[in-house]
Amino acid sequence: MKFSPALQELMEALRCLPGVGPKSAQRMTLYLLERDREGATVLSRALQAAVERVDHCSRCRNFTELDICEICEDPRRDASTVCVVETPADVLAVEQSGSYRGLYFVLMGHLSPIDGIGPAEIGLDKFHRRVIDEGIDEVILATNPTVEGEATAYYLSDVLHNEGVKVSRIAHGVPLGGELEYVDGSTLAHAFSGRRPVE
Amino acid sequence: MKFSPALQELMEALRCLPGVGPKSAQRMTLYLLERDREGATVLSRALQAAVERVDHCSRCRNFTELDICEICEDPRRDASTVCVVETPADVLAVEQSGSYRGLYFVLMGHLSPIDGIGPAEIGLDKFHRRVIDEGIDEVILATNPTVEGEATAYYLSDVLHNEGVKVSRIAHGVPLGGELEYVDGSTLAHAFSGRRPVE
Ligand SMILES: [Zn+2]
Ligand SMILES: [Zn+2]
Repeated sequence: MKFSPALQELMEALRCLPGVGPKSAQRMTLYLLERDREGATVLSRALQAAVERVDHCSRCRNFTELDICEICEDPRRDASTVCVVETPADVLAVEQSGSYRGLYFVLMGHLSPIDGIGPAEIGLDKFHRRVIDEGIDEVILATNPTVEGEATAYYLSDVLHNEGVKVSRIAHGVPLGGELEYVDGSTLAHAFSGRRPVE
Repeated sequence: MKFSPALQELMEALRCLPGVGPKSAQRMTLYLLERDREGATVLSRALQAAVERVDHCSRCRNFTELDICEICEDPRRDASTVCVVETPADVLAVEQSGSYRGLYFVLMGHLSPIDGIGPAEIGLDKFHRRVIDEGIDEVILATNPTVEGEATAYYLSDVLHNEGVKVSRIAHGVPLGGELEYVDGSTLAHAFSGRRPVE
């Protein structure tokens, strides 16, 4: 015996959420139907709206509902400096640290040859062209201090070596093996101020 | 700085799920947009379908997409016995134990005067009438062995005392203070076979 088809389908569908197993999915389904049908309706619409409206900024690849995102369009930002991060959550973490006023480039991942993720998949060809076209002065590499993040930073510093642009890596105030989005703002601020040129 | 409005709304909306805090909601949002937009679309539709189609069985109050649920309509079930449980998850747990072939009545809660939940809110007036109208032989009380569950069982046994129906309580093989839906099938089977009449 199972629940009715619509409940069964909702339980299956909730499994797409990271960290949600069969037991949590069942608990969530019964909770929503018993106690928060309005919340379920709001969530249904929010999911649809996000999927339909949110895409990547055509300049920095961060998530946005516009063609060019608000950060890229902001005239008060220093357009001569670009910080390269792995994910939109990293952009948020850096913004919340209040330590940076330049622009971003969001890789939406990192190099991972085993998974077939090469430079093109994380937009590095596009980024290379942007650095040249926009006459960027400094590229700050803020990929995660993991094996893949370091490899990605190394690849980028190598590619940009002869382009007359200063390339720096944020200091390792960020705990090794950790993920940027979980680091507190003051540690991140420290990491930005302690950045050093990549030889 | 925040994410774009559609992302921000999705993060807020995910908070309606039990056990999902701000950090999980952010992680889920970015995961869905980055890696599983199809899953997000499926989930959006499943939520809407469940909210629109699922209602309570007009006989036993369990969740169903029909007027009368499949268990109530099944001619192979013993219609002279009714098991009273608190939630649809409890029905599923009892069904999976394979120890019961009668019908159900789902309270969708338990008596809780402090929260304004009296007999009418959990359908006990309706259940009382059903016991008389359908000539039920036995009512098995399978509410949770918690303070509220016990109080609800006691109230029901009291109400049915003079109706010429056998009223029993499942044996406390179910761990005290525990919740029925998390108990394994064999413990539940044991609890059903060890039930005793309520004096
Ligand atoms: Zn942008
Ligand atoms: Zn029913």
